[in-house]
Amino acid sequence: MRILLTGFEPFGGQSLNPSWEVARALHGLQLQGAQVVAVQLPCVFARALPALQQALSQHTPGIVLALGQAEGRCDFSVERVAINVMDARIPDNAGAQPIDVPVIAGGPAAYFSTLPIKSLVAGLRASGFPASVSQTAGTFVCNQVFYGLQHALMDQGVHSGFMHLPLLPEQAAHWPGPSLPSWSVNLQVAGVRQALVLLLAQRQQGWADAAIGGGTLN
Amino acid sequence: MRILLTGFEPFGGQSLNPSWEVARALHGLQLQGAQVVAVQLPCVFARALPALQQALSQHTPGIVLALGQAEGRCDFSVERVAINVMDARIPDNAGAQPIDVPVIAGGPAAYFSTLPIKSLVAGLRASGFPASVSQTAGTFVCNQVFYGLQHALMDQGVHSGFMHLPLLPEQAAHWPGPSLPSWSVNLQVAGVRQALVLLLAQRQQGWADAAIGGGTLN
Amino acid sequence: MRILLTGFEPFGGQSLNPSWEVARALHGLQLQGAQVVAVQLPCVFARALPALQQALSQHTPGIVLALGQAEGRCDFSVERVAINVMDARIPDNAGAQPIDVPVIAGGPAAYFSTLPIKSLVAGLRASGFPASVSQTAGTFVCNQVFYGLQHALMDQGVHSGFMHLPLLPEQAAHWPGPSLPSWSVNLQVAGVRQALVLLLAQRQQGWADAAIGGGTLN
Amino acid sequence: MRILLTGFEPFGGQSLNPSWEVARALHGLQLQGAQVVAVQLPCVFARALPALQQALSQHTPGIVLALGQAEGRCDFSVERVAINVMDARIPDNAGAQPIDVPVIAGGPAAYFSTLPIKSLVAGLRASGFPASVSQTAGTFVCNQVFYGLQHALMDQGVHSGFMHLPLLPEQAAHWPGPSLPSWSVNLQVAGVRQALVLLLAQRQQGWADAAIGGGTLN
Repeated sequence: MRILLTGFEPFGGQSLNPSWEVARALHGLQLQGAQVVAVQLPCVFARALPALQQALSQHTPGIVLALGQAEGRCDFSVERVAINVMDARIPDNAGAQPIDVPVIAGGPAAYFSTLPIKSLVAGLRASGFPASVSQTAGTFVCNQVFYGLQHALMDQGVHSGFMHLPLLPEQAAHWPGPSLPSWSVNLQVAGVRQALVLLLAQRQQGWADAAIGGGTLN
Repeated sequence: MRILLTGFEPFGGQSLNPSWEVARALHGLQLQGAQVVAVQLPCVFARALPALQQALSQHTPGIVLALGQAEGRCDFSVERVAINVMDARIPDNAGAQPIDVPVIAGGPAAYFSTLPIKSLVAGLRASGFPASVSQTAGTFVCNQVFYGLQHALMDQGVHSGFMHLPLLPEQAAHWPGPSLPSWSVNLQVAGVRQALVLLLAQRQQGWADAAIGGGTLN
Repeated sequence: MRILLTGFEPFGGQSLNPSWEVARALHGLQLQGAQVVAVQLPCVFARALPALQQALSQHTPGIVLALGQAEGRCDFSVERVAINVMDARIPDNAGAQPIDVPVIAGGPAAYFSTLPIKSLVAGLRASGFPASVSQTAGTFVCNQVFYGLQHALMDQGVHSGFMHLPLLPEQAAHWPGPSLPSWSVNLQVAGVRQALVLLLAQRQQGWADAAIGGGTLN
Repeated sequence: MRILLTGFEPFGGQSLNPSWEVARALHGLQLQGAQVVAVQLPCVFARALPALQQALSQHTPGIVLALGQAEGRCDFSVERVAINVMDARIPDNAGAQPIDVPVIAGGPAAYFSTLPIKSLVAGLRASGFPASVSQTAGTFVCNQVFYGLQHALMDQGVHSGFMHLPLLPEQAAHWPGPSLPSWSVNLQVAGVRQALVLLLAQRQQGWADAAIGGGTLN
């Protein structure tokens, strides 16, 4: 079984993106018989979902955890819901800035995560990694990928979801304005690795802890 | 034409709720031929939607603006989306605390506001009232009512949505912990009145500014 | 007896400053035999203290409450301490931007407020106005005036101090970035009036509640 | 030459304190001919300054950097000023909770850091560690130790100051309420080590960058 771990290329003038630094550090990892495959997604509205779709087709993962950078957040933010809208505060890496455009025309307003978000948060915290359930993944490329992911895997029996990560210290040290929270790449890698361990344990138990908004899979 | 303005009874040990103070202050107001009808909703999961349904049946409004209290927020938070989950951090006024239960079993994951949220925010700010689009109405009774409202009015041609209000100073003055933002009832009443004026103007223009996540009505 | 209430002219590109809007609204007020005199101070490092000194000489007040604008704060921030440094993040209204320069060369590192800050906060909250003790008045012209005020009145038997005010809604509505807290001018005027009532009551009682950092007057 | 690095024992029900975890990790380190000596201070108002005084007498350091935990802060907060007040929001480890009591009766209202706080912040950021100047060290035992330190070393030609540290992830993961910022002990140790390197370089250059509020030493 493969676990697909996606991260984004840097955006917004940055040279690093924690989501990709973490994903690539875990690429190739073997965990309880599962293999981690890391794929980088472009931070471009027009290209992110095709790249995601190709990764899904190529690797046919059993679990997908998409990662993204969330400046200002100070923990692992496990997202509950993806909404069908792109509303960009800044241009993406191709200069596009869609305002109130659906991710998928005619798609439902939202999809819930199909990961067991509550037990994932509880497990991370028990392991010493601050974590919380987040009710919004924003309206930028992160939310677009999360929505597209859930749409693609609907009724496929594959549990998938999205987690936002704090900035890296190297980014935060040069951010304009008041200081923002950050976590070292080592802490982030250890925490995401632990998240995968927790997800595999849940899978072993038949995703029994999954619940609505906490991961119902019909 | 009637505008239904809902507010909540106090909850969480409070004796006031800005949403009801504002709604009742505007009850009976005539605005450009429309009449404002204020209805108080119980802050009780089991009773809020029946009370809302009764108000909709009784008043057959042309516009519905539901209001709620959001401690910690410092502006008019115009909500974009309601999600199909009840996940209560504290008990409601009847002592119930549902965790990850759908608002409406079998309902879609979410509904968007059908108010023109972007032009409403822009109009409020132009009138001197701080406002912003919010991507989450939380998972308490506010979100439940917002979800139930959008569900009830789906395909009815009635524009409806939800706006969160700051605390009142009288509440914030006694709140435990660091000070929280607040607005006087006078400021809140003036601002919500202005919101209704803006919505009526939009209606006059055929809701032309409404857009996805900003108020598509199919 | 006169109460001197100072406010600042607008700065940082604003056309309003809550501290002056409040002060001028209370100018001339008679409170229990005391008269409120409002004086506007320039937001200019080179001219603020001379203007303050002139006001002190002209009005020989028995109580001085200096007011200033604090974007981001959400309550009446009663300042405990003024420090002997000017360290400007933005230029003042004359274009000057001192970095780590003493307010008064050779002066002590700091002066405490000689107002009863704890009982003032408690009294304001009991009256429905959110308030808190603040440990820093910043390092801009507000702190400079506060320091200069305490320096000028040292050993004069005049109780004096500084209170920071939230933005006005009209300012916050157009502020860049995420919404900031604000209070209507009416709420601010009512609250500062109540602060003066509380200070006069303290004076009546011989400033019995004044204590270190809470207003010792040697 | 010895560098004294102080940290606090855990307090407030915690079993860890980042300031001590960092200090003890650097104990014994040789840096450019200087030796780091770590000393733990009790989080007890009645005992912290005697313990500090003993450490100063025993080790006669050339530089002192006192460290403390600041829940809620997300970077290295280099403190500018210590004030002569103890005002405890929670009891110390001996159950004492002084309210508005001077640290040293008859002492000046405040002391500035005599570290080059601006160049320290700039150097830390250039090295990838988020840092900022803080205008308040609070009014708990951290501020008391900072005040007592500056008082003890006044006119001694020893540069000294205080830096607040974020929580450790292990603490933040179990903190009640919304998630707080944290940094791994490894990141904190690397950053404080870098702070010492920067201070030694400043010392080499005769503390030329020290300035008022940024470290004047008379």
